[in-house]
Amino acid sequence: MGGLLITFEGPEGCGKTTMARWLAGTLQEKGLRVLLTREPGGTPLGEAIRELLHAHEQAEMVARAEALLFCAARAQLVERVIRPFLMAGGIVISDRYADSTLAYQGYGRGLDLEELRRLNRFATGGLQPDLTFLLDVEVEQGLARRRASGEAWTRLDAMDLAFHQRVREGYLALAAAEPARWVVIDASQPMEAVQAAIRAHLADRLGLRIE
Amino acid sequence: MGGLLITFEGPEGCGKTTMARWLAGTLQEKGLRVLLTREPGGTPLGEAIRELLHAHEQAEMVARAEALLFCAARAQLVERVIRPFLMAGGIVISDRYADSTLAYQGYGRGLDLEELRRLNRFATGGLQPDLTFLLDVEVEQGLARRRASGEAWTRLDAMDLAFHQRVREGYLALAAAEPARWVVIDASQPMEAVQAAIRAHLADRLGLRIE
Repeated sequence: MGGLLITFEGPEGCGKTTMARWLAGTLQEKGLRVLLTREPGGTPLGEAIRELLHAHEQAEMVARAEALLFCAARAQLVERVIRPFLMAGGIVISDRYADSTLAYQGYGRGLDLEELRRLNRFATGGLQPDLTFLLDVEVEQGLARRRASGEAWTRLDAMDLAFHQRVREGYLALAAAEPARWVVIDASQPMEAVQAAIRAHLADRLGLRIE
Repeated sequence: MGGLLITFEGPEGCGKTTMARWLAGTLQEKGLRVLLTREPGGTPLGEAIRELLHAHEQAEMVARAEALLFCAARAQLVERVIRPFLMAGGIVISDRYADSTLAYQGYGRGLDLEELRRLNRFATGGLQPDLTFLLDVEVEQGLARRRASGEAWTRLDAMDLAFHQRVREGYLALAAAEPARWVVIDASQPMEAVQAAIRAHLADRLGLRIE
């Protein structure tokens, strides 16, 4: 399609949002056409779905409904925002994308991975990231960061430790299975070291130099 | 599972809601354990999704997102409400169910029917109705009834005539392909004639007598 789709994934508190913003800003300063987005969200429909997904009143939500809601927000985002921007040759940076469904609803909640892959294909029309950064951090450290950040503590943050542990292990398994697309970065390092690793891999994998 | 799942389908203004209510009330009067529900809706999550689906602000909603939202509401309804009620031997009457996705997002919007069937299986865990009434009415007549009813005119009502025509033809094709499950009733008849037809088919197909 001409453009590039770069996604950030990882457990809660891994620093995805901060790094996605930093990377988008850095690429923009170099004069590149960059769009920063997030999941769920990024469209009026997606943001309305995000509110539903994060609301503590929806604690009764079943795993299948949750997976379908994430995919609904994703379908809207891909068709209305991501695909047109890529077609125009831009770089899209997304804070979470389809892999989150595999990690959270698959490894985390135990839904069948093959069924979730089919859902993702339906939602995205098969659009895969060119590069995915997994910002890996120990679950306890990530959740402590989330708490310290002062951001809202959502329904998903409130799941038990074993759930977050399965999500983290799921991410590592996904990255190991598809090493050409994934880069795993130790996100317990200081921010400058994480940024340096991202820079090095962008140059290495995509020939994108941002020194 | 012991119970019975009876669904009502049909284009806008065909009288589904009225007939589903009448049947539920009639069966309850006979002392049967009956649950009346509707799609999208029937759970707190489903009703929130219903608002999103009907809102005119969401006119930009893409077909895939729409299909996924209906399925999210359905997954919640089946797992939390319909399945437990059927397992306890009850009769569930639903004003719309999975066939609506095939008629509206498949025939109406042109999404692939096989992909939608897979989505429905994911959402329902494969739960099929025991009997489905298609209340068939000409599109113009149905829409005129909807307008006259004084009910809110939703984003879906506001689609063009050709869309509603495809939905109606889709329903007829679905019914023709699976005659053991579907009953087609001419809903342009007076209400008493429609009720008599429903009564006759319930006795005939399910041995359920409500004279």
